[in-house]
Amino acid sequence: MNSFKISLAQFSPTVGNSEANVQRMIELAQEAKQQNANIIVFPELSTIGYPAEDLLLRPSLTKRTAKAFEALAEVKDIVMVFGFVNQAENGQRYNSAAVMKDGQVLGIYNKQNLPNYSVFDEKRYFGEGHQHLVFEYLGHKFGVLICEDVWSLETVQQLAQLNVESVLVLNASPYEVGKPQHRIQTLQELAKQLHINIVYANQVGGQDDLIFDGTSFVVTNAGQVALQAPSFKEELLFVDYEVENKAYKTATASPFLETIPEIYQALVMGTRDYVQKSGFPGVILGLSGGIDSALTLAIAVDAIGADKVQAVMMPYTYTSQISVEDAAEQAKRLGVTFGIAEIHPIVNSFMQTLFPFFGNSPADATEENLQARARGTLLMGLSNKFGNLVLSTGNKSELSVGYCTLYGDMVGGYAVLKDVYKTIVFELAKYRNSLEDTPVIPERVITRPPSAELRPDQKDQDSLPAYDVLDAILYAYIEEDQSQDDIIAKGFDKDVVAKVIALVDRNEYKRRQGCIGPRISSRAFSRERRYPIVNGWKPGV
Amino acid sequence: MNSFKISLAQFSPTVGNSEANVQRMIELAQEAKQQNANIIVFPELSTIGYPAEDLLLRPSLTKRTAKAFEALAEVKDIVMVFGFVNQAENGQRYNSAAVMKDGQVLGIYNKQNLPNYSVFDEKRYFGEGHQHLVFEYLGHKFGVLICEDVWSLETVQQLAQLNVESVLVLNASPYEVGKPQHRIQTLQELAKQLHINIVYANQVGGQDDLIFDGTSFVVTNAGQVALQAPSFKEELLFVDYEVENKAYKTATASPFLETIPEIYQALVMGTRDYVQKSGFPGVILGLSGGIDSALTLAIAVDAIGADKVQAVMMPYTYTSQISVEDAAEQAKRLGVTFGIAEIHPIVNSFMQTLFPFFGNSPADATEENLQARARGTLLMGLSNKFGNLVLSTGNKSELSVGYCTLYGDMVGGYAVLKDVYKTIVFELAKYRNSLEDTPVIPERVITRPPSAELRPDQKDQDSLPAYDVLDAILYAYIEEDQSQDDIIAKGFDKDVVAKVIALVDRNEYKRRQGCIGPRISSRAFSRERRYPIVNGWKPGV
Repeated sequence: MNSFKISLAQFSPTVGNSEANVQRMIELAQEAKQQNANIIVFPELSTIGYPAEDLLLRPSLTKRTAKAFEALAEVKDIVMVFGFVNQAENGQRYNSAAVMKDGQVLGIYNKQNLPNYSVFDEKRYFGEGHQHLVFEYLGHKFGVLICEDVWSLETVQQLAQLNVESVLVLNASPYEVGKPQHRIQTLQELAKQLHINIVYANQVGGQDDLIFDGTSFVVTNAGQVALQAPSFKEELLFVDYEVENKAYKTATASPFLETIPEIYQALVMGTRDYVQKSGFPGVILGLSGGIDSALTLAIAVDAIGADKVQAVMMPYTYTSQISVEDAAEQAKRLGVTFGIAEIHPIVNSFMQTLFPFFGNSPADATEENLQARARGTLLMGLSNKFGNLVLSTGNKSELSVGYCTLYGDMVGGYAVLKDVYKTIVFELAKYRNSLEDTPVIPERVITRPPSAELRPDQKDQDSLPAYDVLDAILYAYIEEDQSQDDIIAKGFDKDVVAKVIALVDRNEYKRRQGCIGPRISSRAFSRERRYPIVNGWKPGV
Repeated sequence: MNSFKISLAQFSPTVGNSEANVQRMIELAQEAKQQNANIIVFPELSTIGYPAEDLLLRPSLTKRTAKAFEALAEVKDIVMVFGFVNQAENGQRYNSAAVMKDGQVLGIYNKQNLPNYSVFDEKRYFGEGHQHLVFEYLGHKFGVLICEDVWSLETVQQLAQLNVESVLVLNASPYEVGKPQHRIQTLQELAKQLHINIVYANQVGGQDDLIFDGTSFVVTNAGQVALQAPSFKEELLFVDYEVENKAYKTATASPFLETIPEIYQALVMGTRDYVQKSGFPGVILGLSGGIDSALTLAIAVDAIGADKVQAVMMPYTYTSQISVEDAAEQAKRLGVTFGIAEIHPIVNSFMQTLFPFFGNSPADATEENLQARARGTLLMGLSNKFGNLVLSTGNKSELSVGYCTLYGDMVGGYAVLKDVYKTIVFELAKYRNSLEDTPVIPERVITRPPSAELRPDQKDQDSLPAYDVLDAILYAYIEEDQSQDDIIAKGFDKDVVAKVIALVDRNEYKRRQGCIGPRISSRAFSRERRYPIVNGWKPGV
């Protein structure tokens, strides 16, 4: 044989649905065979999807896995390397890969390096493997690794010492900004250093708050990129190995995206997958005339199409005329269903009912929250009646400091901008506008000073520092775990830093009740930043 | 020396506040000295509290720990055995115990068995220790273990083989029903088997959703209970060792509680600690005339006193007269502030605003949710204005199947009955009523058929199976991880089981946005049952 062909199945499993995933894997294997592939590599835990969390603890998983093997055994004439949960006879569970051909299991590999940090909890579910799997096929020596394994120099070195020529890596590596590039560049170095080819197949798709970008690739033992898959889409990819040259033939490599387009596409895919995998007919959101809801609307339309998107403007006394105009204008430009629902009568009825309790107490945030909650309840009413998912529109800066109303603007099932700082929201809006001759977001929405419009002439900057300052402090505190003193030492105003940190700490209870949203940073709220609500930590100590 | 005295500090730390905890530890050590104790044993991680979650990842923790050691070094003439985070020079973090006397650290022990299942995530934070710590003091040979260590037969055996006479165990062992008894009985057997005395000091107090019951104890190498602390309260305990007899002298042992009083006290302590540690002046809740809010009210009063509790009845068209009467009557009996706020005008204003959108769509759950959300918004308004914490009143049965309204009756910061099935709610209400001549919960509240009163003549049993059936199915599915087929095989109706399981699975999104509440079961929602929201698992497969 002068050459062989490997196929990388960059696919989007449905977590928990082993039957559907296996069906899809069989289709992909058939397609790969038609393209004359000899081997097909699937992502980590491809039969059950990643992360299946505590579904992995259900005893009946064993039966499902057996069924998956039975179904896959019907595929002939191609070597399949796929991920599954290996329930060993000693009762231990492993995160494993099987090599199967013509219904025969040629080998099983148990993942050796189990990540248990950041968003990962693999030691909750799995035991560690202690053995390598090496197999020869078509005169070529292959090793198998799973995700975290390839980031352990020791583990990859061991394979290189076993004279493995190509290592097949099954992955479910979640996205964060810049990670697609980082993965490839790091493994290019490693491949060259250890003189080993790396075939890296990654899961793609959104799963709850996690985004898997795909961006599968092949790097040669000379450190060259032989293949690079696009990010954020399913694709079956192929690479040829030429036996004579002992080298992978260079296939087309999709270029890396710039940072802002990369984030934008991540959010679009996350939104699409959440809506579609949950089975919602469409989405609804409150359009305020501000930039957060404007950007969320644009992303929603790009994700699932304007015909499935409903926007509602809910003005009150403090809503400016330009907000109403801009909201209507954007809805028109994007072609989404648009409605207006005044909230005066609702807010008034709340105020009247509360009057006997409030008496002459001066107005405060309570009254602002009533406006937000009237809006939230209207959106939920429309959602309950027609079945559309409510998209929450708050950004990471707001959510960090609690500049949002629980059960008000925080209602919804998916918060598109949950992990996006306000300064990046501006960049994303400008980027989206740059794609078309007529910007989809009216220019004024981007240029006017941000305001929650919950009291007369309110501006965000009345209660918060300027967003570039706020975001820099938040980034240092949240993403970089810097202390209050560290951040002040960088030159930020002492009182501002103390105030921001106190707000972040105090608002854990709000975030805990917020909905999920796509993770794009290295420290997203939710499963990655696990803080107690009752928390006596004093920042200043 | 003819005898020595050991003190067990069953105390309630504030998670994250190392400074305050150390201050309290010093006071307790001084008090123990006054009682002539030679040794004082504190709970696991006593300086920072348990579980401190991702606060443990903050780099400045090292400085705080150093300060804690400095402060504790001032305590003289007593051996202190306390828990702390040991940041080793190799960068590894350990869950550790220090033995300190007169400012000198006599030894450090790193926990060897790190739980990473159920509610525990210790492998996220800590490396495993690999060495025992044994020290001789007052002619007696002591070993030190931390919590999970004592449940590893191998680990305790090793200490026994080192001729250790007494093992001091530092614990933060969370409560679940029956666990206080289970711990002591299991360790009585072990102590006898290995002929080793076990001194077990446990944390007490509520921390977010976790309840630590305390119930510290000493069991002798003959398997006798020499000391048993009360559950659910702070206490400094003492036990004497008589050198001549080579035995601990039997001190007073608090009796175990019966199951229902045990749960009741757990809920009271959890509620008290959440309110007080969060610094709320009091609580507010919606009193419906139903049993869940009635029980929640009683618990709140027992937790923080009637003067800090406000109840609001919010009737609508479908609220029966007896509901209003019973709510008023209970508020009167308990002496809490009580108000009535009709929600008709609010619901009407929502309906009018939504009419242009809804048109002539038939009424469905949407309209019921509007009532619940009007109530939720009123409670939040009162909370925002006066600062009281909203207690959510739903139970585990409802929350399991989604028989509750997100942003409606689910609003609140703490859900007292979140982990209590409805059948247990009834038991708890009867138990509370049995404590006083005039039952605090009007009898009718307990005996009438449960109803959400969201539409005419509605009964819970119109949409749900009888609660004893529902709870049995839920328990099998949630607590026992049984499959749909398993549960049907137990004799439950096939369609009922399928419906209940489908509801549990489908309502993960609601639970994810619910507030925390005290964990009393072996499988509480939240950190212990981590299920994906987008979940393709088919129960029937």
